[in-house]
Amino acid sequence: MRSPQVLRNGGGDNRSPTPGFHSTVAERKLRRFNSLILFFRLISFSFSFASFVFMLTDTRDSDSPHWYDFESFRFVLAANAIVAVYSVFEMGALVWEISRGVTIFPEVLQVWFDFGHDQVFAYLLLAASAAGTSTARTLRHADTCTDSIAFCVQSDIAISLAYAAFLFLGFTSLLSGFRVVCFIVSGSRFYL
Amino acid sequence: MRSPQVLRNGGGDNRSPTPGFHSTVAERKLRRFNSLILFFRLISFSFSFASFVFMLTDTRDSDSPHWYDFESFRFVLAANAIVAVYSVFEMGALVWEISRGVTIFPEVLQVWFDFGHDQVFAYLLLAASAAGTSTARTLRHADTCTDSIAFCVQSDIAISLAYAAFLFLGFTSLLSGFRVVCFIVSGSRFYL
Repeated sequence: MRSPQVLRNGGGDNRSPTPGFHSTVAERKLRRFNSLILFFRLISFSFSFASFVFMLTDTRDSDSPHWYDFESFRFVLAANAIVAVYSVFEMGALVWEISRGVTIFPEVLQVWFDFGHDQVFAYLLLAASAAGTSTARTLRHADTCTDSIAFCVQSDIAISLAYAAFLFLGFTSLLSGFRVVCFIVSGSRFYL
Repeated sequence: MRSPQVLRNGGGDNRSPTPGFHSTVAERKLRRFNSLILFFRLISFSFSFASFVFMLTDTRDSDSPHWYDFESFRFVLAANAIVAVYSVFEMGALVWEISRGVTIFPEVLQVWFDFGHDQVFAYLLLAASAAGTSTARTLRHADTCTDSIAFCVQSDIAISLAYAAFLFLGFTSLLSGFRVVCFIVSGSRFYL
């Protein structure tokens, strides 16, 4: 098993003064892998932020219904806000890692933190989307959507965007799960 | 890395004629680990089957509402039925593996099959439970639950049981994920 020891622990730049060919290759591969995760996180953030905005602005005059009248829609808004904020934090951490070569937290904490939160937030987003779908379908069967078609269409769009964000967060969770496996295998996030 | 080669591939009993001390220990550990997974699967099955039965019998006279009147409740019923059937199959496969020492499918397929299905069905069950919760809360705000309190209580119980089944399926998914890691690490499900 390869176990490159350079650029391991978070907090300080413990870069080897003369990194060998092996560690340079591993470093480049890790940077490419991290860029892929960054790309997925960016898409996940875009969808969750768009969903948040669509839901937040899903209110018109006082006669038509508002998003905050429905528990599930409040849940969709909150879940998307949490995922968007988390994605921004994670993107910052990844940019830091790619540019400086070290993780913000100690390595073992970082890989488990990422994987654990990806899993939990993916579940959260799916639960919110499913609850939102249920309410949206109930409204469609009631007369609400006949009277305020724009409200229903906009909430449908917000929920669809939340599903898309969940999908990409799920992909990201697989990639961060792979980083955990790498860590278990080699004691470093470099096993690629 | 240890990589015991006995009892690896599914389909046939390719047991070593004189298994050494190392493989016997690994085998005993694997059996204990599999028994733990079996225990979690049994609990997950019990909850999902109970939830299925509670939802299926949530119908009284023709005046009160029925579970099949609501899309989300049909989803809860279907998801629990799928998870219960899957759990029975997986328990059978595990009992086979524990008693005979070999997996039903080839080992690589088996570990990925278990982990993949655990993940997908955990998501399915959570989505169903969240959708069911949303509908149950809507009914509570409407007058349905004032008129048919027993119907609402029983559907609440069914949904709570579905959440419990999801929780234990989630735990099982972590354990089967660990088996995948073992397989990646050592090329065998024996790395413990």
